[in-house]
Amino acid sequence: MAGEDDIRAAERAVQWPDAMDAELIFVGRIHSPWTSRIDCPRQGRPDGPVCRIEIFEPWQQALEGIGDYARLEVLYWLHRSRRDLVLQSPRNDGVTRGTFALRSPVRPNPIGTSVVTLLGIEESMLLVRGLDCLDGTPLIDLKPDRGLFTPLAPPTPGDADVGDP
Amino acid sequence: MAGEDDIRAAERAVQWPDAMDAELIFVGRIHSPWTSRIDCPRQGRPDGPVCRIEIFEPWQQALEGIGDYARLEVLYWLHRSRRDLVLQSPRNDGVTRGTFALRSPVRPNPIGTSVVTLLGIEESMLLVRGLDCLDGTPLIDLKPDRGLFTPLAPPTPGDADVGDP
Repeated sequence: MAGEDDIRAAERAVQWPDAMDAELIFVGRIHSPWTSRIDCPRQGRPDGPVCRIEIFEPWQQALEGIGDYARLEVLYWLHRSRRDLVLQSPRNDGVTRGTFALRSPVRPNPIGTSVVTLLGIEESMLLVRGLDCLDGTPLIDLKPDRGLFTPLAPPTPGDADVGDP
Repeated sequence: MAGEDDIRAAERAVQWPDAMDAELIFVGRIHSPWTSRIDCPRQGRPDGPVCRIEIFEPWQQALEGIGDYARLEVLYWLHRSRRDLVLQSPRNDGVTRGTFALRSPVRPNPIGTSVVTLLGIEESMLLVRGLDCLDGTPLIDLKPDRGLFTPLAPPTPGDADVGDP
């Protein structure tokens, strides 16, 4: 039986580089109903099950004020994904597409992003809807949804820069 | 004169952990009109200047099919940001907010996300509008905008999971 990480017909892997460029720290962990990759939804849905986002110390203080936002952008590390495919065949039919033209978890930097609805906060745990990831997925970042956020810092000259139409 | 990386009144830094959890690879570089942090816009705008996203080898093949999407999500590494602040004072007035309730570049994993309009592709270079980052910012990932993307892979059981209302 083929494994979940096998390469499919016409998919293309590249040689993985020797050196990496930057380091991440996991700031929390996502608790979801999905414990196998086969069951995980392809994309989160706004009426999906409630998931919990646990924030680790010392980052819990960074939640201050987050309750002001009804929607959050969540970044997470797709820790079970291979990273070396440039062409993928999502239907396993020999037809391929570039990794950057897919939202597949398989990518050179396996970072998933979702926009979730914030339902509640219980100490260092956020209750949200809209995720699509495995139980235990490491959390990288949380931000207010860009559509809801107005910068608090003073404007900069670049704020007024527009391009040729 | 205070430096750009100084901590402000009432801001709070945490002890940076000894060990990191995951590694990133830079897959390209963003060319923008902004060469100093003071000039960078606080947020990208849809009518902003044209920026160029350069893709490095061996990731250029991963662009195959990206021209089908009018909007892309771009993830980049905010390489000039300090990472240890949990409370920030964007107006420098002693009033603070948690880092996760801000879209500030200062965050434990300094990853910026923008949604851009794809204007054109010239070999391994994408022309886009809507970015807000410094010239030379390292690229981490490109994905079709979630609102435009329909998964190509077959559905999974989790796709049908909904929660209590």
